[in-house]
Amino acid sequence: MLQEIAEQPAALEKTIAEERAKIARLGEAIKQRDVDLIVLVARGSSDNAALFGRYLLEITTGIPVSLSAPSVHTIYQAKLNLKHALVVGVSQSGEGEDINQVLENARDCGAFTVGITNEPASSMVKLVDETLLMHGGREQSVAATKTFTGQMLLFYMLASALSTDGKAIDYSAIPDLAARALEQKPALVELVQRYVFMENCVVVGRCLAYANAYEFALKLMETCYVVAERFSSADFLHGPLAMIERHFPVIVFAPPGAMLEGTKDLISRLQELHADTMAITGDIDTAVMCTRSIIMPRDIDEFLAPIPYIIPAQIFAALLAEAKGLDPDQPRSLSKVTRTL
Amino acid sequence: MLQEIAEQPAALEKTIAEERAKIARLGEAIKQRDVDLIVLVARGSSDNAALFGRYLLEITTGIPVSLSAPSVHTIYQAKLNLKHALVVGVSQSGEGEDINQVLENARDCGAFTVGITNEPASSMVKLVDETLLMHGGREQSVAATKTFTGQMLLFYMLASALSTDGKAIDYSAIPDLAARALEQKPALVELVQRYVFMENCVVVGRCLAYANAYEFALKLMETCYVVAERFSSADFLHGPLAMIERHFPVIVFAPPGAMLEGTKDLISRLQELHADTMAITGDIDTAVMCTRSIIMPRDIDEFLAPIPYIIPAQIFAALLAEAKGLDPDQPRSLSKVTRTL
Repeated sequence: MLQEIAEQPAALEKTIAEERAKIARLGEAIKQRDVDLIVLVARGSSDNAALFGRYLLEITTGIPVSLSAPSVHTIYQAKLNLKHALVVGVSQSGEGEDINQVLENARDCGAFTVGITNEPASSMVKLVDETLLMHGGREQSVAATKTFTGQMLLFYMLASALSTDGKAIDYSAIPDLAARALEQKPALVELVQRYVFMENCVVVGRCLAYANAYEFALKLMETCYVVAERFSSADFLHGPLAMIERHFPVIVFAPPGAMLEGTKDLISRLQELHADTMAITGDIDTAVMCTRSIIMPRDIDEFLAPIPYIIPAQIFAALLAEAKGLDPDQPRSLSKVTRTL
Repeated sequence: MLQEIAEQPAALEKTIAEERAKIARLGEAIKQRDVDLIVLVARGSSDNAALFGRYLLEITTGIPVSLSAPSVHTIYQAKLNLKHALVVGVSQSGEGEDINQVLENARDCGAFTVGITNEPASSMVKLVDETLLMHGGREQSVAATKTFTGQMLLFYMLASALSTDGKAIDYSAIPDLAARALEQKPALVELVQRYVFMENCVVVGRCLAYANAYEFALKLMETCYVVAERFSSADFLHGPLAMIERHFPVIVFAPPGAMLEGTKDLISRLQELHADTMAITGDIDTAVMCTRSIIMPRDIDEFLAPIPYIIPAQIFAALLAEAKGLDPDQPRSLSKVTRTL
């Protein structure tokens, strides 16, 4: 897992180089189709990447996005009106049966279908209209890392190809930002020791960082067996906040940008409750409010933050698992391809 | 909270009587507008009701549904293409500022807007094109119960009004089913004692019962301060399953219908891991597989199960809070109207 985390800058670089021209062409083709809805279909880490894609696509393209409920298609065989929809399946292996069934049903309902996967010979590739591939090599660890950021990157590329009014994000700096994020590792080796006996926690993030909260929580659940809840800061205040008592650990993604002030308000509230807080932030004011922090470079644009900000979280989970005497590459009860319907 | 739980059959009955004619007219008006997307906007328990509405609407109307990401509207002021969209805001108080901002922005983007609320004089009512009201009286408890099932009921009514091809659900039995569900209370008084020292758990449900898992977990978090994770059974198998060790409590909604076999497979898997399982089910085979069960009437149709199945969960949370020496009506750190942007 740590090795695959370290491979991410090169994997991201290669994916940009290999996929850029194809995605630009695909963007033009989709624009011709008068698409007025994008539906994203995924499970697990891929679903977290889709959750990121949802925010990025809506903000930069103005096309409404829905995260698919697979059982509507797989169990109830609902025939949705998808004639002007772009349906994007996301699966590391391309063999998620439920995801592929949704793509088939969506195609039957008139949708244009795209697959995002790591496996060019997979079942998904055979059934979709177009495929966007990650180019970081096969992922060995059960816990997804390089495929997660690869999927996020492909959403940047797709969003740029579909965006209008100059809202396209220049994503070319992302591999470099990912490389800088890897420099956190020595500090994290020390930091994780403090969390060896943590049994549960809450991870919070919002908007473009919301998916990061889901993904960090999932990594903590699957590699460290920590009961890690995940919320947007707004949803967290609507009820779950009541759980927070003195010393309860809350991890907060606090990237720069429009969300930062609200995030600091949440941290103030958590200070009053004497929670044990950890921020992942480039903002020093935010860092000093928290019990501990992972300090990111200050100059990362808010729209580019999600990939560099998830990397220290991935490292944290892998190192914490090791510190707990667990093997992060082989979580109990799991295998690399999960079969669900 | 227990009193408001008990008021639900009458509240549901009254809402049907008062809103039925208006919703039928609204359904015809919406059908004229060529709606090809429904967007639901909510927070907290209302968002859980929306999660239920999402499945019901997609399955029975064939119109794709998206659960809104409020910050896309409130923070980034994205101008989405919503010209053929129906946007439904759900808020107990009608004063959720973020929900109302999304409704305003959606209206500016061309959407037809509907509000679902308990408060006829609220800000939400003033800004939407049409309002669907619950008629169960003001809710005093911070933890929503009668407004949650009231919102679910209004989704049944809206879905029926929008459905085609004979897929309309006959929801008239729901108040009676709710009344029968209340009969669980004496058994639950005894059952909750076993869970007084439970600190964390997982709640699982799928498709039409997925929102029930979210809502039961939220009730456990806000009234009992239990760290309660919530998953669809499919997502649960994609990673979080690794957390489950001997004696870990997992609560499973297992209503009748198309999902039951898959749910039983999940319970078998949990048996192998020696988890401590509790099913809410009308199926005796499922009940005997679990450590404990809440036994529901056997003859509830799968499409009508979500409301009667959440009621014992509400009672469980209220009684467990009391058994822990907590006041379920006044959770710490929360107030009835939560202000978030």
